[in-house]
Amino acid sequence: MTTTTPVDNGVNTAALLGARDALTAAPAAAEFTWRATTVWVLGTHSHSTVETFSGLGQEHTHVSTFSFDADHPECFASEDRGATPVEIVLVALGSCLTGGIAAIAQHREIQLRRVSATLEGDMSVLGILGADPDVRNGYREIRVRFDIDADASPDEIDALIAQSQKRSAVFDLVTNPTTVIVETAR
Amino acid sequence: MTTTTPVDNGVNTAALLGARDALTAAPAAAEFTWRATTVWVLGTHSHSTVETFSGLGQEHTHVSTFSFDADHPECFASEDRGATPVEIVLVALGSCLTGGIAAIAQHREIQLRRVSATLEGDMSVLGILGADPDVRNGYREIRVRFDIDADASPDEIDALIAQSQKRSAVFDLVTNPTTVIVETAR
Repeated sequence: MTTTTPVDNGVNTAALLGARDALTAAPAAAEFTWRATTVWVLGTHSHSTVETFSGLGQEHTHVSTFSFDADHPECFASEDRGATPVEIVLVALGSCLTGGIAAIAQHREIQLRRVSATLEGDMSVLGILGADPDVRNGYREIRVRFDIDADASPDEIDALIAQSQKRSAVFDLVTNPTTVIVETAR
Repeated sequence: MTTTTPVDNGVNTAALLGARDALTAAPAAAEFTWRATTVWVLGTHSHSTVETFSGLGQEHTHVSTFSFDADHPECFASEDRGATPVEIVLVALGSCLTGGIAAIAQHREIQLRRVSATLEGDMSVLGILGADPDVRNGYREIRVRFDIDADASPDEIDALIAQSQKRSAVFDLVTNPTTVIVETAR
């Protein structure tokens, strides 16, 4: 006789499937607005907070206020009081794909043991310095390398990663263009 | 007799202009690779770190290791142990534009007193839930609203914001497509 331990990656799949059904029937409730506030500190150092968002037809407040410092490093004549904004983009991408892998693994009844990702993005700073109009400001290429230990075959792991990209909000934001409107309070 | 206090936004403009000249003459040194590592914790919760990068032809280590938690909120049946990855993208965008405003203001000899930005991004979660193939996963639109107090006219402040967008790495990353390669260590 064998006993089977239920797969548990800490994701409530039943709730997510229930939400999908409910929101498909009431798409207005699926509209979310996410927010952040950035306050300049000094030089290139800024402090940002994430506290509230709207969705499911109502306002929400996070369990705690999340804080972020950003800065440029010392080799850019700055104080290095936080990660650079472009490193923070890599964090957003890595965390989005990783959370997706956990959720999809749960849905596919694959037990995860360990998931880690190393991310790298290449850029020439001639773009942001305004030194060469042919060099873009952002990354030329981003590479994400996953290391996953799970009760699954290599093909199943590859399929998990592929599905996570397909459903990732940040992967979409980085690989496709998004409209940004910048305005001034006056 | 009047005395003039030098403009000081905490940005070393001379060093940046020197770097621009030096890197224009030696563009290989302008190549940077930025990095982040993401480790899955449980459910949609992950922990990311930013520690090293390469540029100016050598390896660099940040003054301290910067850490980030990401998660989904309670209304997504998660534990809300960190900001969502899409909120972290807003933080990256707000901090990139704000640091740029400080650097450009210094170059234009405009004294800043206060800079803050509120950012909002709209999405329908029917995309990430896989409920509607016509809905994208990422933001439909992002709005950034700056509130700036500076020794400058409204037109000069508008020009600061415009130039910051023009030179911002994250503004470029969000508004234009970037190649992302995802692979597995095996």
